[in-house]
Amino acid sequence: MTDLADDKGYHLSESVDVQSTTGDDWFVSQKGVEFAGTHLLLEFWEASQLSNETAIEQALVRAAEAAGAKVLDVRLHKFSPSGGVTGVLLLAESHISIHTWPERSYAAIDVFMCGDCDPHLSVPVLENIFRPGRMEVSEHKRGKVEHADSF
Amino acid sequence: MTDLADDKGYHLSESVDVQSTTGDDWFVSQKGVEFAGTHLLLEFWEASQLSNETAIEQALVRAAEAAGAKVLDVRLHKFSPSGGVTGVLLLAESHISIHTWPERSYAAIDVFMCGDCDPHLSVPVLENIFRPGRMEVSEHKRGKVEHADSF
Repeated sequence: MTDLADDKGYHLSESVDVQSTTGDDWFVSQKGVEFAGTHLLLEFWEASQLSNETAIEQALVRAAEAAGAKVLDVRLHKFSPSGGVTGVLLLAESHISIHTWPERSYAAIDVFMCGDCDPHLSVPVLENIFRPGRMEVSEHKRGKVEHADSF
Repeated sequence: MTDLADDKGYHLSESVDVQSTTGDDWFVSQKGVEFAGTHLLLEFWEASQLSNETAIEQALVRAAEAAGAKVLDVRLHKFSPSGGVTGVLLLAESHISIHTWPERSYAAIDVFMCGDCDPHLSVPVLENIFRPGRMEVSEHKRGKVEHADSF
């Protein structure tokens, strides 16, 4: 896991110069690499608001908007007796999900986006609402095309 | 990325001897490691049925059942003109998601489960329906607790 968090500051790991390919092909091309989308796995520890469905929904929607994504649907479910919440935003550009474990002050958040969106822009929005004392972010390029001539 | 696929065969990467901790703590403990849940990232290439919403919904629900998970909600959305489909299952034990790029015969699938479920049991079900010519599976333990005495 690549930890992109640095002393609670957050740094973009690479250029956000995303260009969609043309025609009927919806993969993106970035610095000569072709892939389907960028998927961030976030681990928030010592976090707040993890049983608050209203705050969670607001966080996810704002995170999507900050990244330039279009929300198609929002689904949340709160569990009893733990108070944990599962939430998923379906986006025109993939999804954002959250699962919270309030008894551990922990949340697992995924921000998966394709197209011209920049999922890294979601991170400060999520941090601002959940206020993690510690976090880890790992980035995964999904559907990365391995060109034969790159070997 | 750890590639658990081996010549189209699929092998469990570790014991599925999952035990929930007791009381109000919903983290799991497996071989002395405490964590929130197991998250599989699947890359399916040269796959079929990627514009077929009925097949996709069936695949996700059967994958959840195979892993022992309880489905709370199913949401699917088909995109025009690409024919790509986004689908998410909310589970009592986290989620399964899929995003398809039919023009590339590619699907990005996530199987994230906590509790006593075994997400590895979802994989052959998904393979059987989408018939990928090539696949990659990476496993991520979410919310892994780093104990001070393990250093």
